[in-house]
Amino acid sequence: MQDKMQKIISLCKRRGFIFPSSEIYGGFAAIYDYGPYGVELANAIKSAWWKAMVQERADIVGLDSAIFMHPKIWEASGHVAGFADPLVECKDCHTRSRVDHLLEDIGVQSDEKMSQKQINQIFIENKKKIKCPACGQQNFSIVKKFNLLVKANLGNFTDDWIQDPVYLRGETCQGIYVNYRNVLQTARIKIPFGIAQTGKAFRNEITARQFIFRTREFEQMEMQYFTHPKEELKEYEKLRQARWQYYLDLGIKEKNLKWHKHENLVFYAKEAYDIEYNFPFGFKELEGIHARGDYDLKQHSKFSGQDLSYQDQKTQEKYIPHIIESSVGVGRIFLAVLCDAYQEEDLAEGLPADKQSSRVVLKLPKNLAPIKVAVFPLLRNKPKLVKKAQEIYDNLKSQYMCELDDNGNIGKRYRRQDEIGTPYCVTVDFNTFDDQTVTIRDRDTMKQERIKIKSIEEYLEKKLN
Amino acid sequence: MQDKMQKIISLCKRRGFIFPSSEIYGGFAAIYDYGPYGVELANAIKSAWWKAMVQERADIVGLDSAIFMHPKIWEASGHVAGFADPLVECKDCHTRSRVDHLLEDIGVQSDEKMSQKQINQIFIENKKKIKCPACGQQNFSIVKKFNLLVKANLGNFTDDWIQDPVYLRGETCQGIYVNYRNVLQTARIKIPFGIAQTGKAFRNEITARQFIFRTREFEQMEMQYFTHPKEELKEYEKLRQARWQYYLDLGIKEKNLKWHKHENLVFYAKEAYDIEYNFPFGFKELEGIHARGDYDLKQHSKFSGQDLSYQDQKTQEKYIPHIIESSVGVGRIFLAVLCDAYQEEDLAEGLPADKQSSRVVLKLPKNLAPIKVAVFPLLRNKPKLVKKAQEIYDNLKSQYMCELDDNGNIGKRYRRQDEIGTPYCVTVDFNTFDDQTVTIRDRDTMKQERIKIKSIEEYLEKKLN
Repeated sequence: MQDKMQKIISLCKRRGFIFPSSEIYGGFAAIYDYGPYGVELANAIKSAWWKAMVQERADIVGLDSAIFMHPKIWEASGHVAGFADPLVECKDCHTRSRVDHLLEDIGVQSDEKMSQKQINQIFIENKKKIKCPACGQQNFSIVKKFNLLVKANLGNFTDDWIQDPVYLRGETCQGIYVNYRNVLQTARIKIPFGIAQTGKAFRNEITARQFIFRTREFEQMEMQYFTHPKEELKEYEKLRQARWQYYLDLGIKEKNLKWHKHENLVFYAKEAYDIEYNFPFGFKELEGIHARGDYDLKQHSKFSGQDLSYQDQKTQEKYIPHIIESSVGVGRIFLAVLCDAYQEEDLAEGLPADKQSSRVVLKLPKNLAPIKVAVFPLLRNKPKLVKKAQEIYDNLKSQYMCELDDNGNIGKRYRRQDEIGTPYCVTVDFNTFDDQTVTIRDRDTMKQERIKIKSIEEYLEKKLN
Repeated sequence: MQDKMQKIISLCKRRGFIFPSSEIYGGFAAIYDYGPYGVELANAIKSAWWKAMVQERADIVGLDSAIFMHPKIWEASGHVAGFADPLVECKDCHTRSRVDHLLEDIGVQSDEKMSQKQINQIFIENKKKIKCPACGQQNFSIVKKFNLLVKANLGNFTDDWIQDPVYLRGETCQGIYVNYRNVLQTARIKIPFGIAQTGKAFRNEITARQFIFRTREFEQMEMQYFTHPKEELKEYEKLRQARWQYYLDLGIKEKNLKWHKHENLVFYAKEAYDIEYNFPFGFKELEGIHARGDYDLKQHSKFSGQDLSYQDQKTQEKYIPHIIESSVGVGRIFLAVLCDAYQEEDLAEGLPADKQSSRVVLKLPKNLAPIKVAVFPLLRNKPKLVKKAQEIYDNLKSQYMCELDDNGNIGKRYRRQDEIGTPYCVTVDFNTFDDQTVTIRDRDTMKQERIKIKSIEEYLEKKLN
């Protein structure tokens, strides 16, 4: 199945979905750029999330807090002291590796809540079985914990700012917690209510692996839901069901999803599940859904000295809300959607020998497809055909993301649109001028229909909405 | 007019458009968060830009390159050596100030291309007239240039990373330049073509002023257009006209816009204009439109060692494309749109004495309004009204951003929706149950009509699209 992963990575590069960062400069580790089709797919994923999470919910509002915040926020959250990965360095080739990953590779589970001493102990016990993934030697340093928060000098105009850094956010939800009171005072909401936001977060991952699954710069979509303490677990169950249904509605195959219940909860958590997706490299976390109790608001109340309690307008009861959260990465949904949509089809049967005998097709949900409609003149050197295709494109472009393509033979153009997941291709040919019709081809069935030019909009409206 | 600015800042806070960052921790300078209505307005601004710039243009494609890139890119671009502001420190109160701003305040123009020595000379000549803006003293340090690039330790796991930093991007366009070849190889485009992207950029501004006009973290919308060297200035004129028209189409009043031609061009630039907006603090840059020649691709070709020339498929001519750019900040359009839409209206005439005699209203273009429709039950304590309002809200929410509000008397609810710019308010009252009608109120005229519940969708579709 790693073979499928390689095919998807290759498709992403070849078709302009994902480019490795800074490629002409030799690359920049664990960072990726989204190309012309990638940005459309990612935007469609973000829009679908925002629509389901904010637009269609009267009890949830949006927010866009900045990447940079007061550094004390990361002390309150526990990240400055505790947000660290265990690391060893190979003394021969100086490659650094995550100890939990090295242990996982030989089938030994570790736990992120272990101390440096504890994990070093396990590492020493298993040392004979572990080789450096880069050079194969077994000459390791001792285990050190490395903090994942990325440090920066924003707003600091001295030379010794390394002593006094600010942090790029390691997760977007802290921006929600510290704005909870502002939102409460300005939006028309009362408990239970949620605050949702999408945005970049950054982690100094020692080894970033599996393409866009784990990157040092990534985009999160998080929703924090504020509940009465006694309602926390009831609301948590509702959220779990809603998030599972969300992926089905998004078009993900149910057989590729499963629940993973966390066995080792952090001390303040009431309950924690992940929704896992069946990636080519196995079932891995897509989204985390956690019941966090009153930990977050209590910590920020303590560190800021501000009262963050909620007063019920009817009962006058005053309490610190308990928080349940849904947290997912755009890159992870992006990869899951691609894996779910990727298909190779054998077309050999019944085709003349000179035609291609197979195709790669992304059977993307139509609302996520980067291009909804491609418009082709049959031949590029016939101005009459090109002009008519341009007219049809111009007519559709304000409503749909369209592409006008006159490059290469028509079969190649279909294959290209199949590979980027375009649901419909419209072709202008010589018959167009006889009867004002075009062909419209369906990505999934590959069937072509002739329809009137004036019916195109109606046809697409029915099929795409 | 600074009075108007204060009113807008206050409205933004009071109504959940913009919150100062990390407020419960005492704030975090020059950073702002977008609240529930702010994020909707900002998203609408970005969508409108993307639609005009990417979706409706066959010759422009989108991109989303990462914030972090290979640090050599910032050497090639000239930012590591030259992207610096001149700074003095008050020896009494230790406040740092930008020298060009201090000079501007006393009516002396400086030039960003001046060396540290040159600007120090001008500063000394005018020193007697300049006071520290914080404490009023005249006891300044010498002028030092301070680099605006923000440094970070992403991907660096050593302790002495300050010697070997990576940079948060100071502008988004460099991510376009370094992906130019990837885009060319994967998208169906030929010269002239453009690449557009929106995304965060960061600058260590010494003094960030005027609310969201100049912030250390900000979001850019940039489009870089690749042209034949001989076509550069012709395409530049077309772009200038298109961008001016864009602001008119967005609903900005033409009297509030003007062109500013740059007199002191950097050595590689062919031409440079800004579109300025009449902010309450004067006409200031909204967007820059620059003809940059072949500087950017030449620099990246030199520093990366890669061939970045373009070969024309028809003529076989090979050349380095010349670039023209359009660059604007989301925060600046956001502020311009708010300033343009903000109105105080005197309603005293003809009103009974117990009614409010004035209102604040945001006459936002309808496509930018954060909430398109608000739905009210006339009274919150009548379950029948509340249930019907909920039904109407549920019916509209998948199509429009709506709000359901039963809080306070109906007049107050109208004022609140006026202040956030909601074009239509639908109210369910007791007559609703007699004849299946509601009232629908227009933000701008304040007129109310009674319409059938089953006609609401059609009414809104006509008015909002």
